[in-house]
Amino acid sequence: MQELKPSAPNSSPLTPLLFLQRASLVYGDSPSLLYGDSSFTWSQTHLRCLRLASSLSSLGIGPGHVVSVIAPNVPAMYELHFAVPMSGAILNCINTRLDARTVSVLLLHSESRFLFVDVQSKGLVREALSLLPSGHPRPILVLIEDDVEDPSSASAGDVDFLSTYEGLVARGNPEFEWVRPKSEWDPMILNYTSGTTSSPKGVVHCHRGIFLVTVDSLIDWNVPKQPVYLWTLPMFHANGWSFPWGMAAVGGVNVCVRKFDADVIHRLIDAHRVTHMCGAPVVLNMITNWQKPLPHPVHILTAGAPPPAAVLFRTESLGFIVSHGYGLTEVAGLVTSCAWKGKWNVLPASERARLKARQGVRTTCFEKFDVVDPKTAVSVNWDGKTLGEVVLRGGCIMLGYLKDPEGTARCMKNGYFYTGDVGVIHPDGYLEIKDRSKDVIISGGENLSSVEVESILYGHPAVNEAAVVARPDEYWGETPCAFLSLKEGQNLPTEKEMIEYCRERMPRYMVPKTVVFRDELPKTSTGKIQKFVLRELAKQMGPSRVSRM
Amino acid sequence: MQELKPSAPNSSPLTPLLFLQRASLVYGDSPSLLYGDSSFTWSQTHLRCLRLASSLSSLGIGPGHVVSVIAPNVPAMYELHFAVPMSGAILNCINTRLDARTVSVLLLHSESRFLFVDVQSKGLVREALSLLPSGHPRPILVLIEDDVEDPSSASAGDVDFLSTYEGLVARGNPEFEWVRPKSEWDPMILNYTSGTTSSPKGVVHCHRGIFLVTVDSLIDWNVPKQPVYLWTLPMFHANGWSFPWGMAAVGGVNVCVRKFDADVIHRLIDAHRVTHMCGAPVVLNMITNWQKPLPHPVHILTAGAPPPAAVLFRTESLGFIVSHGYGLTEVAGLVTSCAWKGKWNVLPASERARLKARQGVRTTCFEKFDVVDPKTAVSVNWDGKTLGEVVLRGGCIMLGYLKDPEGTARCMKNGYFYTGDVGVIHPDGYLEIKDRSKDVIISGGENLSSVEVESILYGHPAVNEAAVVARPDEYWGETPCAFLSLKEGQNLPTEKEMIEYCRERMPRYMVPKTVVFRDELPKTSTGKIQKFVLRELAKQMGPSRVSRM
Repeated sequence: MQELKPSAPNSSPLTPLLFLQRASLVYGDSPSLLYGDSSFTWSQTHLRCLRLASSLSSLGIGPGHVVSVIAPNVPAMYELHFAVPMSGAILNCINTRLDARTVSVLLLHSESRFLFVDVQSKGLVREALSLLPSGHPRPILVLIEDDVEDPSSASAGDVDFLSTYEGLVARGNPEFEWVRPKSEWDPMILNYTSGTTSSPKGVVHCHRGIFLVTVDSLIDWNVPKQPVYLWTLPMFHANGWSFPWGMAAVGGVNVCVRKFDADVIHRLIDAHRVTHMCGAPVVLNMITNWQKPLPHPVHILTAGAPPPAAVLFRTESLGFIVSHGYGLTEVAGLVTSCAWKGKWNVLPASERARLKARQGVRTTCFEKFDVVDPKTAVSVNWDGKTLGEVVLRGGCIMLGYLKDPEGTARCMKNGYFYTGDVGVIHPDGYLEIKDRSKDVIISGGENLSSVEVESILYGHPAVNEAAVVARPDEYWGETPCAFLSLKEGQNLPTEKEMIEYCRERMPRYMVPKTVVFRDELPKTSTGKIQKFVLRELAKQMGPSRVSRM
Repeated sequence: MQELKPSAPNSSPLTPLLFLQRASLVYGDSPSLLYGDSSFTWSQTHLRCLRLASSLSSLGIGPGHVVSVIAPNVPAMYELHFAVPMSGAILNCINTRLDARTVSVLLLHSESRFLFVDVQSKGLVREALSLLPSGHPRPILVLIEDDVEDPSSASAGDVDFLSTYEGLVARGNPEFEWVRPKSEWDPMILNYTSGTTSSPKGVVHCHRGIFLVTVDSLIDWNVPKQPVYLWTLPMFHANGWSFPWGMAAVGGVNVCVRKFDADVIHRLIDAHRVTHMCGAPVVLNMITNWQKPLPHPVHILTAGAPPPAAVLFRTESLGFIVSHGYGLTEVAGLVTSCAWKGKWNVLPASERARLKARQGVRTTCFEKFDVVDPKTAVSVNWDGKTLGEVVLRGGCIMLGYLKDPEGTARCMKNGYFYTGDVGVIHPDGYLEIKDRSKDVIISGGENLSSVEVESILYGHPAVNEAAVVARPDEYWGETPCAFLSLKEGQNLPTEKEMIEYCRERMPRYMVPKTVVFRDELPKTSTGKIQKFVLRELAKQMGPSRVSRM
């Protein structure tokens, strides 16, 4: 059968951009985006994206160019997920909560040609641009206007915008023939990892990878046609785990929201009859303080950090249907999920939450994960105990890091992507992430998962947030040090009581030797607790002198 | 970004075979296959497929080899959809209802090495083998035993079986490392089109194409996790539109059935709480004669021939949720579906049925269809009237026809696969198939869709089946000739009454000039009416002499 080769009818590049035209055909009159008092239909969104892509194209933007955007979850942010790659360019979403220095580093590194700026990020961008080396070409700036307070309005005159976002839409051609990728391996997305310690890395994804993760997530989460999707996960965070494209595939309603708290989420769920949403465990934690129950069941997909079982339990008690998965910026979305088994339904709620807190099995279209000894690359036993590094293989894994062949080679080896996450495989084949490699605490030669200790701390009724890091120790090398924030109005426990609580629930070597109470724990813009800050604090405390046990 | 290329972690070949191991991990204890009194779990099915693949491998079967099976929808047929490609070989399913001569032609053409034979097809295979040229190597035969009457048992001695199916399973190694395709473009499936007139064509599909059509169908039909799927569509018919692999992806229950009628379907739906099934319109027609309503709602997906609106209407009245799509053997499943719009729900039932009888829009992951003038390749207007040839582009289109570069080149051109189907595009972008090219009737220079006339005939309460073909005519060139079978116990209409019925409902040039009543219309094994037989009959009637209108 050697004569049978790919040909034009069957080998056009896979790309998620195709979903948009279909959405406009099938769901043309139905709402695509809701934001405050404004709304759009799929037909409008399709034409607006074509117009915008045509404007970019007429301004010289095309294949190989990077177009950046710094904005929260507003409609423009959604549209740019289609419009930028439809011009042939590569979309780069920048976290609005970064500091100016980091933004300037990203603009420099990505050689971004074009920067869409949310009105509330004007000050940040101005400062970032001032930090660029003199003589370095500036990106062309476009302002995303909005009916919100502009914190920098007084001094905004010194940033030059080529146009407003709506100006670019208005001048565009809705009949534009959008630029198809030449190959499905052509780059489409550039995302910088939040980089808790090292300098940011530019993760590049191709059209094929984004297509695959998008369809995989739809199947794996079993997303129905025309869901109502609330944007509680930032699109600048790994492109909202692929759901900008996924919502076009199923003709969903995208409920956009610039800023939210527990009350806003509750109100939007009620007002728009939201059916689906995503969020890091920190979002679950935020809503579990609700006193009001949900007006109707809502599917929530969580990932991004191992969620404590207690948080899952409380979320489900409110009426959420929780799905839990695992992914990283480098895989463009989720690649494992805790596929639920009917036989688990008869277990007690706390046991169900414990099972669901595991990261689970590979998603339907993903190829493989394994947990290996990072030194020998040998797979660990499925015993739920032996720690190893999580490695991944599948179609949605990044092409590599931009301008960093060494960094790419370091994590792309032996046929796998090495995640830097530490986990175990349970006897039933389900993965459980125990820690980031660098967060593992080595106490008396024993590898100790900080996440495991945190998970038990979250079970204490007074604990709001918990983070456990290594504190240097003269005898043990390191000992666990717990940072806690407590719930308001609770009968507050003492350090001694917390240590006692742990002693009853975990092996002695895992028990924190130090407990520090804080009003709030330091977090990244995506809500992850910044352990490197806490680790630094623990170091500054100086070595502990724990008596030999 | 030129330095970023595909690498081992992200570029392993797409293949639907990966779904099976995952099903065994997630749904290991859950039923995979039910058949009569026997049942299997996903864990068992996984191990049985590995064993079978290992047996094939140890018998010298591997990449590039064709392995055939001639069987109805029994569990072995399902398992072979995984086991054969897991040995590296190409699966070729043969229609059990073919005649011996055709079977021998297929065995010769495919150079099949191995043939799995259902017990009830022993006689057919013996005869087919006897028709092979002497000296031509015979495929190795394996008998699929079953607890059913063997029509050929008396003279079965003269076929030599290497083993029984269960024998091969038993001797296999469940730890077998199955053979991964080297490339996702490697051939995986060989299906012969039923060939109503010309000699059969061998359609070859690769792993990538089958993967894509499988995930596309799951998303497009929105198949939930663990559905109960009744096998009313033969797996030998375009691999049951990809659902053997799809059911593994979602951990469904495959309810197998060797032979069925309306009563059997009703009983199985009730007994197993079936949620999903597929079937050509002939299956819908079969069940619409039920007097009993459905015990619970069942999703039914139909395609394969344009279904008359009246049949869709009756099916929905029984409680079925009907989805309607379009595909061909050459695209491995469905590539358009009549995506339903909420606003249509308020329309009268007959109008809803008329809208649903259209073949619809491209499926979620398919690239494109168009309707073009076959001579100029220019797209027709979206006017719902202008006939043209349906052309397709997308990842699930076949690699080509086996050993037939001319046939492949004839239909793979201008970047499209040319279907030979004639259709229109409605103003809302929805496709409607009007006919096979060769079934179009040209009367007085006017192109006339036989399907359109049939659709109106099906609206007559007495009509069971209708087929309209061209009858030579001295004046008009051709005129429509209708063949009808009527429902039992009805007040039977005359030829004149039927013509009068048509006159009131269609333009004069479309009205059949001849009406022939038959007890039953000739059909292919997949239930399609054999129009070439009727066309021959119409020809034999001699030219009609219709007065000028």
